[in-house]
Amino acid sequence: MAESAESKPDKSVLAGIFDGEYADLRDRVKGFLVERASFLQQAEEWTPSEYREQVRDVVVEAAETGLTAAGFPAAYGGADDVGANVAAFETIALGDLSVLVKFGVQFGLFGGAIHQLGTERHHRAYLADIAEARLLGSFAMTETGHGSNVQALRTTATYDADTGEFVLHTPDDDARKDYIGNAACHAQAAVVFAQLVVAGENHGVHALYVPLRDRKGRALPGIRIEDCGRKLGLLGVDNGRIWFDQVRVPRENLLNRYADVDENGVYSSPIENPDRRFFTMLGTLIQGRVCVGGAGISASKVALVIATRYATRRRQFGAPDEPEMLLLDYGQHQRRLLPLIARTYALTFAQARLARDFRSIFSEGHGGDGGDEERRRRALESRAAATKALGTWHATRTIQECREACGGVGYLSVNRFAALKADTDVFTTFEGDNTILMQLVAKGRLTELRHEFGSLDYRGMALYVGQQVVETVVEKAYMRQLIERVKDAVPGRGDAEGDGGLLDPEYHLAMLRWREDHMTAGVARRLKGGIDKGGDPSEVFSRCQHHLLGAAHAHAERLVLEAFLTTIDGLPEGPERSLLESVQHLHALAEIERDRAWWMEHGRLSTERAKAITRTVDDLCRDLSEHALTLVEAFGIPEQLLPRGM
Amino acid sequence: MAESAESKPDKSVLAGIFDGEYADLRDRVKGFLVERASFLQQAEEWTPSEYREQVRDVVVEAAETGLTAAGFPAAYGGADDVGANVAAFETIALGDLSVLVKFGVQFGLFGGAIHQLGTERHHRAYLADIAEARLLGSFAMTETGHGSNVQALRTTATYDADTGEFVLHTPDDDARKDYIGNAACHAQAAVVFAQLVVAGENHGVHALYVPLRDRKGRALPGIRIEDCGRKLGLLGVDNGRIWFDQVRVPRENLLNRYADVDENGVYSSPIENPDRRFFTMLGTLIQGRVCVGGAGISASKVALVIATRYATRRRQFGAPDEPEMLLLDYGQHQRRLLPLIARTYALTFAQARLARDFRSIFSEGHGGDGGDEERRRRALESRAAATKALGTWHATRTIQECREACGGVGYLSVNRFAALKADTDVFTTFEGDNTILMQLVAKGRLTELRHEFGSLDYRGMALYVGQQVVETVVEKAYMRQLIERVKDAVPGRGDAEGDGGLLDPEYHLAMLRWREDHMTAGVARRLKGGIDKGGDPSEVFSRCQHHLLGAAHAHAERLVLEAFLTTIDGLPEGPERSLLESVQHLHALAEIERDRAWWMEHGRLSTERAKAITRTVDDLCRDLSEHALTLVEAFGIPEQLLPRGM
Repeated sequence: MAESAESKPDKSVLAGIFDGEYADLRDRVKGFLVERASFLQQAEEWTPSEYREQVRDVVVEAAETGLTAAGFPAAYGGADDVGANVAAFETIALGDLSVLVKFGVQFGLFGGAIHQLGTERHHRAYLADIAEARLLGSFAMTETGHGSNVQALRTTATYDADTGEFVLHTPDDDARKDYIGNAACHAQAAVVFAQLVVAGENHGVHALYVPLRDRKGRALPGIRIEDCGRKLGLLGVDNGRIWFDQVRVPRENLLNRYADVDENGVYSSPIENPDRRFFTMLGTLIQGRVCVGGAGISASKVALVIATRYATRRRQFGAPDEPEMLLLDYGQHQRRLLPLIARTYALTFAQARLARDFRSIFSEGHGGDGGDEERRRRALESRAAATKALGTWHATRTIQECREACGGVGYLSVNRFAALKADTDVFTTFEGDNTILMQLVAKGRLTELRHEFGSLDYRGMALYVGQQVVETVVEKAYMRQLIERVKDAVPGRGDAEGDGGLLDPEYHLAMLRWREDHMTAGVARRLKGGIDKGGDPSEVFSRCQHHLLGAAHAHAERLVLEAFLTTIDGLPEGPERSLLESVQHLHALAEIERDRAWWMEHGRLSTERAKAITRTVDDLCRDLSEHALTLVEAFGIPEQLLPRGM
Repeated sequence: MAESAESKPDKSVLAGIFDGEYADLRDRVKGFLVERASFLQQAEEWTPSEYREQVRDVVVEAAETGLTAAGFPAAYGGADDVGANVAAFETIALGDLSVLVKFGVQFGLFGGAIHQLGTERHHRAYLADIAEARLLGSFAMTETGHGSNVQALRTTATYDADTGEFVLHTPDDDARKDYIGNAACHAQAAVVFAQLVVAGENHGVHALYVPLRDRKGRALPGIRIEDCGRKLGLLGVDNGRIWFDQVRVPRENLLNRYADVDENGVYSSPIENPDRRFFTMLGTLIQGRVCVGGAGISASKVALVIATRYATRRRQFGAPDEPEMLLLDYGQHQRRLLPLIARTYALTFAQARLARDFRSIFSEGHGGDGGDEERRRRALESRAAATKALGTWHATRTIQECREACGGVGYLSVNRFAALKADTDVFTTFEGDNTILMQLVAKGRLTELRHEFGSLDYRGMALYVGQQVVETVVEKAYMRQLIERVKDAVPGRGDAEGDGGLLDPEYHLAMLRWREDHMTAGVARRLKGGIDKGGDPSEVFSRCQHHLLGAAHAHAERLVLEAFLTTIDGLPEGPERSLLESVQHLHALAEIERDRAWWMEHGRLSTERAKAITRTVDDLCRDLSEHALTLVEAFGIPEQLLPRGM
C-alpha cells in the first residue's frame, strides 16, 4: 500500500463517500428497515400467501413515509427528483428483496410508466394515488413468447372509431402477459404494452392504462389472471399471467406522450420513424434498469460484510499448541474475498456516476429531442445497460462465493445467504437479460448508435456495420485514434521495466482503453469481412457474437475503472484516500490478471509482466486483508439487518 | 468434427457407455423415481415438516426395494458390492435431492460407518435393521467449532473402568454436534465421533454407537437435540444439533475395528501412530465423498437437458419476415452450453474411473495394510477428493448458467432449477469443503503422501516439504522427469505449426501434464525457499496457498482428461466414438483456453497458437451444437422427471 498516513482509515469517512448527497435519505430508509428488521427472519417461516400480504403491507407503509415517489412531479406527491428514487431503491435492497421488487413494480415501473409515457391527464388522475399506494398496479410488458424482443409483442390494442375505445386482445397463449409483478393478487390496474392498430394499420408497441380488478379484487370482465406459481425466489412478490379477451378502454387511456389517436381516429406522433419512436418510449423507462444494477451491488455488500466478519472470527486448523488460524489469514481466503470487495467499491462508484447522469438528464424536463440530448440519452442507455449487467452478475458471483466461504454456516437461512441467493438470481434476467444488454452496449460502441438503427435486429446491425460504419466511422476516424493510442499510450510495455508502473492508474486505464479499442475494431472488421464475403448476416452475426460481447465487456470495464479514478481524484489526501487507491489498484490489476491472456496475445503485455501482475495481486490481497473489516463496514449496513454471532 | 460416419450418432449407444455394468440397477432406480415423479412438484408446496415426513417415507420405501444397501455384507441384507452403492446414489440424484441426502445419511454415512469402523458384533446387531430402515440413524461428526478440522473435535468419550462404560460429554456449545442429518426428527441412534480418553490419556478421535431416542421418539436422558432451522435448500432433510451431558454407553459400543478398550480398561490399536490411525479410520468413510461428486454430476445433467431442450425450442429476435432465431443458433448460446456439456461428459468418465477404483479396493476385503494397498488407498483418496471438488463446483456453475440461459422461465420452480440450485449448493461444502479437499490433493502430489505426514496441519506439511521432500523426492527424481517431459513431450509448440495438432489428444494430455508438473515443482520450490529463508511456516504456507491450489487443479484436470481418453480408447469405431472425440477436443481445448495465460507465461504456448485455440473452441461449439440434443438425451434422464413443455 502507498499509505503513508499516520492515522487509520475511518470507516465513517468512507461511508460518507458512498452515501453522497442522499445520505439523509439513505439514513431514513435504513431507519424504516431497522424498524422492520424482524421481517427478514419471519419471511422464512411464512407461507407464500402470507409473505405476499406482509410485503404489500410494508409497501403501503413505505408510501405513508413519503419515501416512495420522489421522482414524481411535486404536484402529485413527488419531489421532482429521480435521483432520490435510485438512492432509496439501493438502500431498500439491504433488506428483504421481495419488498424491494414489489416497491419497484408499484412506484418505479407502474408509476414510472404513467409518469414518463403519460401526459398531464394521466398524471392528474393517477400519480398521487400511486405514490400513496391507494392505487396498486402492474407493468404488463413481457409475454410468454417474447421477453427480450419487446418489439415483437403480440397483444393488440385496436382502435374502434365507432365507440372511441381501444380493444385489447390476447390472440393466443404465447401472447399472454407473463411474469407480471403485482398481478397475481394486488394490482388494480396495469400499464399494458400492445401493438397499436388504428384503421387497420399497426403503429407498433404502445402503452395503455388498463383497469384489471374491481373494488373487491375480482378480475374485470374479459380479463383472466393466473398465478405464475412458485418461483426460485422473491416468494413475496405475486407474479401473474394476464389474458385479455376483447377488453375495452377509453381512447384517453393511451399513454400519449409520444403518440396519440385523436377524436377522429387519426394516429399521430412527433416521432415519425416507428423504430425511433419505440426506442424513445422504452428509453424513458430506464429507471428500472438503473435501480436493479444498484440493488445487485447492495446485495453484494450484505454478503461481503457477513463473509468478511466470519473470516475474522472463525478459526480452523493451525500449528500445534497455538490458536487455530483465522480464515482471513489464509492466502486463498484473501484471494476469494478481497478482489470481490475491491470490485464492489468500483461498481458502487460506477453506479453513482450512472445515477448522476440519469438524474441530470431526467431532471432537465421532457421533450428536448435535440441532437445533444439525443446523444446524452443514448450514452446513458449504454451506461445503464453495462452497469446493470455487471452489477447483477457481480451479485450472483459474490453471494455464491461468500456463501461457500462461510461453509455450512452460510447454508443456514438465518445467515441471509439463502434469501440473497434466491432473490437476486433473477436480477441478471429481468429489466433486460444481461447478455442482451451487453449486446446493446456493443452495438452502441460499433455504430455510435443513431435512432435510425436503434432496432435490436441483428441483421440490420450486421448489414449496417458491414456496409457503412466500418468504412466511415471505424476505419477512418476510429482506427486512426486507435493506432495513435497504441503507439503512445500504454506505458510499461516492455520487460525492461519489470514491475515498474503496475500501481499507476494511468497504466491501468491505458490497458483497458487499448483492449476496448482493439476489440471493438476487431469485431467490426470481422463483421464487415463476413458480409463482404457474401455471408448470411445471421450466420455472420452468430459467429461474431462471442467476440462482440467481449468488446462490450471491455467497454463496460473501462467505464467502471474511470468512475473509480474520478472518485478518488475528488477526495482529499488522507488515510481513506490512500486505502481507496490500494483498493483501486487491486480492482484494476485483478481485471487485467483475469484477462491477461488477451493482452499477451495482442502483444501488449509481456509474459514476465503478466507474472508480476499476479504477484502484485497476491500482495495487494494480503495487505488489504488487514483493512477488510473497515472496508466492508464502510458499506454502512445497519447491524440489525445482519445475522447475529457470525 | 472428425466424423466420417454415414450414420448419425445414436443416443442409446452413448447412454450405454454412461450406464456401464450397473445399467440394470440404474434402470431399477429410475423406475423407482418415475413412480414418484409427482414428488418433485409436490415438494415445492409442502411445509418443511411435511416434506421431512415424505422424505422419510420414500427412504423407507427404497429400503423395501432392496436398492439401499448393496455395499453391506450379504449376511446382513447387502450384496458385498460397494460399486452398486455409488451407481444407485448417482441415479437417485436425478430426482429429489432431499431424498438423496437422507438416503445417503442413513445407508451411506450411518450404515457405512458401522460397516467400516465396526466389527462383527456391530454388523450383526445393526446392519440388517439399517438396510431395511427399521433403525434410522445419524452420522455425528461435525461440531459447531470444527467442521473441516475433524482431528480437533472436542466432544469426549471417557472410559469409566468401574462400570465398563464410555461417558460422552459436550464441554460447551462450540463442541455440540451440528448440522447432523436425520438428527432433528428421525434418528434413533448415531455414530458419534469423540476424543477417546482412557485412563487419563487421549487417544484421538474414535467413533461410538450411541442411542439417541426411545421408541416414542423422545431424546434419551442426557441428550439434547435442537433443530438447525431453515436452510437454503434440502428442506426435506432434518438437520439437528446434539449435546451430550455425561451420557453413558457400554464399552462394546466403541466401533472397534481399528482400536479397542479391553475388559481391563486397556486401550490397544493395530496402528500405533495416532495420526495414521485417524486417517486410516477416516479413509474407510470415503464412500460419501465418492457419492457426492457423482451426485453433483447427475444434477448438472438434469440442468443441461432442460436448458438444451429450451435452446432448441425457444426463438427470440431475427431477421424481418423470417422465423425468429433459435437460441442455440446464437454463437454465444453455443459458447454457454457446449463446453459445459463436454465437461459433464469428461467428469462422468472421471467419476466412473473413481467408482471402479473404489469398488476394486473396497471389495478386496478389509485389513490388508501392506504397502501397496496403502498406496492404492492414498491414490484413491486423492482421486476422490479431486473428483468430488470438481464435480460439485461444476454443478454449481452449470446449474447457474443453465438457469440464466432459460431466462425467466428458468426461475419458475416448476422447471426444476430452483430446487437444483438450492439443494446442490451445499455439495461444495459437505463431505469435505472443496478448498480443503484440493489442498489434500496438492499435498498428495507434493509429498507422495505417507501416513506419517497424513495430518492436514499446514505447519507439519510446510516443514516437511521444506526440509525433506523437495530435496529428495521432488528435486531429484521428479525434477528430472519433469525436464525430460518438457524437452520431449509437448508437440506443436512453435508458431510454425500453426493450428496443426490442436485436435490431437496427445497434445492435450502433454499440455495438462506439463502444467501439473511445472506447478507442483514450482510450489515446492516456493515452500522450500520460504522455509530456508527462516520464514514462519504459517506465513509461508499462506503465501503459497493459492499457487498450491493451482497445482491441485492442474492435477485434477489431468486425471479427468486421462479418464476421458481411456474411455474413448475402449470404444469401437463408429459415429458415437467420432462424436465423443469431438466432445473430448472441446473439453480439453476449453480447459487450455481458460488457463492459456499460464502456458503463455511459461513459454509453452505461443500467442498465435493461443488465438488458434480460441478459434477452434468457437468452431467446435458450433459444430457440436447440431448434436447438442443427442448429447444431453444420452444422459438417460427419464422424461417424467423433466419439466413439461420447455
